[in-house]
Amino acid sequence: MELLHDNISKAKSSVFTPGNLKVKTIKVKKSNDASPPSELFVVTPVSMGAYPVILFCHGYCTANTWYSHLLQHISSHGFIIVAPQFYQCLIMSMKDEIKIATKVTNWLSTGLETILPENLKPDLSRLALLGHSRGGKTAFSLALNQHLTSLKFKALLGMDPVAGPSPPGRVEPEVLTYIPQSFNLSLPVGIIGTGLSNKSKGIIPSFAPNGINHAEFFNESKPPAYYFLAKDYGHCDILDDSKVALASLLCKSGKGSKELMRNGVGGIIVAFLKAYLAGENDNLQSIVDAPSAAPITLGPVIYSK
Amino acid sequence: MELLHDNISKAKSSVFTPGNLKVKTIKVKKSNDASPPSELFVVTPVSMGAYPVILFCHGYCTANTWYSHLLQHISSHGFIIVAPQFYQCLIMSMKDEIKIATKVTNWLSTGLETILPENLKPDLSRLALLGHSRGGKTAFSLALNQHLTSLKFKALLGMDPVAGPSPPGRVEPEVLTYIPQSFNLSLPVGIIGTGLSNKSKGIIPSFAPNGINHAEFFNESKPPAYYFLAKDYGHCDILDDSKVALASLLCKSGKGSKELMRNGVGGIIVAFLKAYLAGENDNLQSIVDAPSAAPITLGPVIYSK
Repeated sequence: MELLHDNISKAKSSVFTPGNLKVKTIKVKKSNDASPPSELFVVTPVSMGAYPVILFCHGYCTANTWYSHLLQHISSHGFIIVAPQFYQCLIMSMKDEIKIATKVTNWLSTGLETILPENLKPDLSRLALLGHSRGGKTAFSLALNQHLTSLKFKALLGMDPVAGPSPPGRVEPEVLTYIPQSFNLSLPVGIIGTGLSNKSKGIIPSFAPNGINHAEFFNESKPPAYYFLAKDYGHCDILDDSKVALASLLCKSGKGSKELMRNGVGGIIVAFLKAYLAGENDNLQSIVDAPSAAPITLGPVIYSK
Repeated sequence: MELLHDNISKAKSSVFTPGNLKVKTIKVKKSNDASPPSELFVVTPVSMGAYPVILFCHGYCTANTWYSHLLQHISSHGFIIVAPQFYQCLIMSMKDEIKIATKVTNWLSTGLETILPENLKPDLSRLALLGHSRGGKTAFSLALNQHLTSLKFKALLGMDPVAGPSPPGRVEPEVLTYIPQSFNLSLPVGIIGTGLSNKSKGIIPSFAPNGINHAEFFNESKPPAYYFLAKDYGHCDILDDSKVALASLLCKSGKGSKELMRNGVGGIIVAFLKAYLAGENDNLQSIVDAPSAAPITLGPVIYSK
């Protein structure tokens, strides 16, 4: 079988619309022959080729499948996404969650190829981390402890990462130090925040209050680091439509179209991954130079060189 | 009388030692003929010349004179410092404090020259703002409301600025937004933080806790912005020795020499002012490139371009 070395560039559409590659989703149980350390939701292009890999960490009390539209958008631009299910309503400690994420990372080099169709090859030399909410903290924790993983991450993205329920009640392990650019990381970081994430929903306090949310994760990231604030959207507005409806009972949601939000966030992620996994910087630079080209209002957009 | 246009460059010593210019201090009462809007402590070189002017805002429950050694260090490099006394143990609201600082700024162009010796000329086209602790917030508030002052500030420095007693109890006016680089300022910003400022002193909580201290003021500043953390010192360690002894009953203090701390902080301030009021960037760039040349341990040092 002839493998295409790089299928990313086949996806020539705008990053803010789904890419040209057809994708499929695969659910993998722990009892699968490849014995993944947790259940997995995998989203992958179907065309023959070698694709970079993204490890995706879901948020608090959500399922990996609740992000399927966003993950398909990203994958359709030429990425294989592996999303472990850490827990759902049965909560586990952050430490245990990070342990599982570490195990899944270490499993990728032997296990991932065996669960993919034969014509697909994961290119683990181009591996990135993506996380949402509490999963954003998990992603940062994993990146901060690269000595524990056999594979090295080349890029790190957080969608509304949150360090804990509130500043005095931060959850171990503490990753925030409140010193600018203090994260001991040597990989590029992209942070996407939402403007409504620090708002309460009636009597229910914010899930991502000031001081422990997206802004602080960006502040503590060394250059190169990017910050994109989706001003008019809320913490859960990247989920699939049916799940946003559920989440918005607890969590302030934006008034705009959630499809546009997923396209906007998906586009930023694709642009960032193309820049740092494929050396194609044009799309990312375009967003920094002209944020108004995105389908959602972004502001501020910051590139810390 | 012939005025030298620029006496800053006469001070050729290291920024971390007192400059070559002899200085004097002047206390001005409100009942003075020049009728300043508050009592003032003025520190000025004595040699004939025109000097840039620094408006200094003192911290919570301190007197303007408690900073006399630090202010003399700065002045000896060629700056006239005007330090209003807002209040001391009789506290006033932040809003009233900012009103007085605004009035003093507007008074400078008519009043300052009349209280200085005849051979000295304040160069108000080169005016900077400096504040410590709560006075750092006052300085930022003043800069954020430049439409209220007849004079324009060219540079802004905060020494351990603090936004309020604690995150939920922030004091009006709120200046922090928890959005990176959100301050609507178009002047260069320098922040000097202390590594012990977020520590409690026994049962007395920190005066500058995480989330409302130096780091957040830096995070919200647009480039060009500088951050210097004096790792091993505390919030009040820039005061004159006798006042540090008093303050350290309430406030965690570093173990090192306070004279070295004042020299280190004074040197950073002088380097920053030389860069942005006199176009002499060498000293500031040297500190960014080699922080270990400072007499105190600095880390991190960040220049956000």
